[in-house]
Amino acid sequence: MEDRKKENQSMQVMKEGKFFAFLLESLKGISQIIYLENVITGLLILLAITVSSFSLGIIALLSAMIGTLVAKVGGADKILVSKGLMSYNSVLSGLVLQTFLTGPYAWIVALVGAAITAVITATLMYFLGNFDIPILTLPFILFTWFVLLSSYKLDSIKLSDSLSPQSLANWELHIEGKINLLRAAFNGIGQIFFVTEAIPGLLLFIAVFWASRKMGIYSVIGNVVACLITLALGGEHTLIMLGLYGYNAILTILAVSVVYNKKENRYAPITGVVAACMTVPLMASVSIWLLPFGLPALTMPFVLSTWLILGARKVLPNL
Amino acid sequence: MEDRKKENQSMQVMKEGKFFAFLLESLKGISQIIYLENVITGLLILLAITVSSFSLGIIALLSAMIGTLVAKVGGADKILVSKGLMSYNSVLSGLVLQTFLTGPYAWIVALVGAAITAVITATLMYFLGNFDIPILTLPFILFTWFVLLSSYKLDSIKLSDSLSPQSLANWELHIEGKINLLRAAFNGIGQIFFVTEAIPGLLLFIAVFWASRKMGIYSVIGNVVACLITLALGGEHTLIMLGLYGYNAILTILAVSVVYNKKENRYAPITGVVAACMTVPLMASVSIWLLPFGLPALTMPFVLSTWLILGARKVLPNL
Amino acid sequence: MEDRKKENQSMQVMKEGKFFAFLLESLKGISQIIYLENVITGLLILLAITVSSFSLGIIALLSAMIGTLVAKVGGADKILVSKGLMSYNSVLSGLVLQTFLTGPYAWIVALVGAAITAVITATLMYFLGNFDIPILTLPFILFTWFVLLSSYKLDSIKLSDSLSPQSLANWELHIEGKINLLRAAFNGIGQIFFVTEAIPGLLLFIAVFWASRKMGIYSVIGNVVACLITLALGGEHTLIMLGLYGYNAILTILAVSVVYNKKENRYAPITGVVAACMTVPLMASVSIWLLPFGLPALTMPFVLSTWLILGARKVLPNL
Repeated sequence: MEDRKKENQSMQVMKEGKFFAFLLESLKGISQIIYLENVITGLLILLAITVSSFSLGIIALLSAMIGTLVAKVGGADKILVSKGLMSYNSVLSGLVLQTFLTGPYAWIVALVGAAITAVITATLMYFLGNFDIPILTLPFILFTWFVLLSSYKLDSIKLSDSLSPQSLANWELHIEGKINLLRAAFNGIGQIFFVTEAIPGLLLFIAVFWASRKMGIYSVIGNVVACLITLALGGEHTLIMLGLYGYNAILTILAVSVVYNKKENRYAPITGVVAACMTVPLMASVSIWLLPFGLPALTMPFVLSTWLILGARKVLPNL
Repeated sequence: MEDRKKENQSMQVMKEGKFFAFLLESLKGISQIIYLENVITGLLILLAITVSSFSLGIIALLSAMIGTLVAKVGGADKILVSKGLMSYNSVLSGLVLQTFLTGPYAWIVALVGAAITAVITATLMYFLGNFDIPILTLPFILFTWFVLLSSYKLDSIKLSDSLSPQSLANWELHIEGKINLLRAAFNGIGQIFFVTEAIPGLLLFIAVFWASRKMGIYSVIGNVVACLITLALGGEHTLIMLGLYGYNAILTILAVSVVYNKKENRYAPITGVVAACMTVPLMASVSIWLLPFGLPALTMPFVLSTWLILGARKVLPNL
Repeated sequence: MEDRKKENQSMQVMKEGKFFAFLLESLKGISQIIYLENVITGLLILLAITVSSFSLGIIALLSAMIGTLVAKVGGADKILVSKGLMSYNSVLSGLVLQTFLTGPYAWIVALVGAAITAVITATLMYFLGNFDIPILTLPFILFTWFVLLSSYKLDSIKLSDSLSPQSLANWELHIEGKINLLRAAFNGIGQIFFVTEAIPGLLLFIAVFWASRKMGIYSVIGNVVACLITLALGGEHTLIMLGLYGYNAILTILAVSVVYNKKENRYAPITGVVAACMTVPLMASVSIWLLPFGLPALTMPFVLSTWLILGARKVLPNL
């Protein structure tokens, strides 16, 4: 009875034009990738992605809607859903699969993946909830690694050529290459959403500044500091230029200095910069760890660096 | 004093013919591999294993007894022991080591392994107890991986030829092969116990149906659905025929739809089928992840898929 | 105001000669590597390291001081700091990086590493605190693996030649070699601190016996038993001679039989010997697992074996 009633209600949701509310929640899911609950930011991000690739933009919106829908049907806490917190990982999974898979079924895998990621989001929320630690982008990371690995045994899932396993025994480091810090910075924020050009990068900075000037400034600082540290430590210049040493730093400095900094610590800005710097060696080591499997590091360095600080703060409160 | 008293008691257990009760507990340990606390089911499973290989049958019974004994001597909760919940992982460890090891000492390693697995069972019960999540077959999986890896550095532990490490960079997928769904189904249930023929498979289905018709039907559904999904996704036909895409699905659908489904969810049968389907890509990715180490995936896909749903249900109660 | 006040206080600490107290805490950090809170033991260990290598001794002392300082500045519990429990992992990180890195910046990486390890110590204390399980040397292990892996992508961090990745597919086992149990025993205790000679080994045994005769005796037993088990299982004789099958056994038997054995179990000495024996196959499998990455197993076998028993005791209280 109760269930039947619920079903009728959800039918009405569609009919009464509450589809618009659902769309807003989905856009918030897009903006939550950078911790913001802001429809305009979500729209600007969607625009930036669509400018870079039309199909990527479509997948982003559909993934956000699928993630939101799974959370609603599954009976998730309504506040969490309306803030976009149940669906931002689904957006990332849709984007990454559309980027790294090829062949005629890639978009089906991407959309089914968005649905499964919403379930993984719930699972990890439960497991990490015991520790009072945010799940960040872990559901998307784990899901992506599993799907990419499964492609080697399942003929219907085709990897694009950009990923190839390599033995560490054959690895050689070549760091040479030109450096242009401005382009590296635009690509850095773009890489969060799997895009790599100046216009989308600019739009993304605007999207963040629109919602919060403070967060905009921090994201620029984190990005630039990480690029400089990578240069100092002797990282590959081509990767710096692609923004691959910047995107984890942006997400980390925002998490450590702004979003999860409840008590106003005097040292929080410094801790955030240190955490952003730590994503650089973490990016290097996670990449090497994944080398034999040909997997991308995604935002794992950000997750590790942020958890490191958030966990340490419980024991070292001055951080 | 107390301890001395306990020791005398355990001596009496043997003397007073309570050995029979101990034997029943051990048989329940065998039936608990598929969640059943049923002596007849345990006997039928033991028969199925023994029909397939006499030495495997002996190891199964001895491992169950060793696991039960370690739990008793260690002072485990008596109800857990009597239900067979402390020893089913030991049975699996004994079976897997007898299957994958060779040389004159293999059976010693298998029996010592059964004892150590009982300790690992206790450890993981403690760690996962905090999360209100069942340990499933994780103790057996972790233990097996560790022993198989250690064989490369210890001359007295010899691997059989069926396991060999391979670089993912050299991997090629060939999915061709004949398909016979009936044989695949019998092998699917057989693979849970490391056997692969029609008669043992039939006996195992009888063992499950004997204890619970509902569970019997679900195990057939999970098995067949997983084989069909694997065909659709383009998995290797030879592996489907060996039942290697079916055994995780059987365990998963039973866990999700029947055993750990406390509140009668309307969607639980569907969720169970979806979870069974998810074991297919999970089997693919876990296998690839283990490829450089030459390790078998065992029941890890089942553990991951089941935890995924059981954890998600705490946040998405309608699943 | 409050913060300014604190700063003045910490200035005074230096001025009023409280630097001496700080030095004592740092020496306790060195002795805590083998669970002891004893300044003389700390000094003897420092002497043993310095005898083996002067630069290693300097790094050990500086790392202990840095770890203690980070914990103080971070606002850690004062009792934990004064017992040396916040800094022993920093000492190990400093030692291992000085051992495995080369090039002009190695010592900077080692000292910065000591600081970061203090933060990781805090993080893991928080996460494992929920389980009532000690962190042991896990912070040092995880940190070291991450830094060593990152060296492949960062030109400024140079690995020494002793570490090289190798495909398991090309692995061949050769166990031949002379055995001298006495030298193996001295090297076994030395390897805890990355030294491998008779005089430092002797000094280290004296350091342990000085603080506790009971712990001294157990450390000899664990060491010798592990060497004999490795011989029996067919481990590489060269590794036994280097003490590489002994150091984990020493740490494990001390943890299981003495340090974390709150209730006086009758079986605790036996359990400790069994746990020490289990470090042997664990050392073998962890080494093979790390082979493709060219990483050392460090004290991971000790951590796994000790957690196994400490966790199991919660369910099997007689262990």
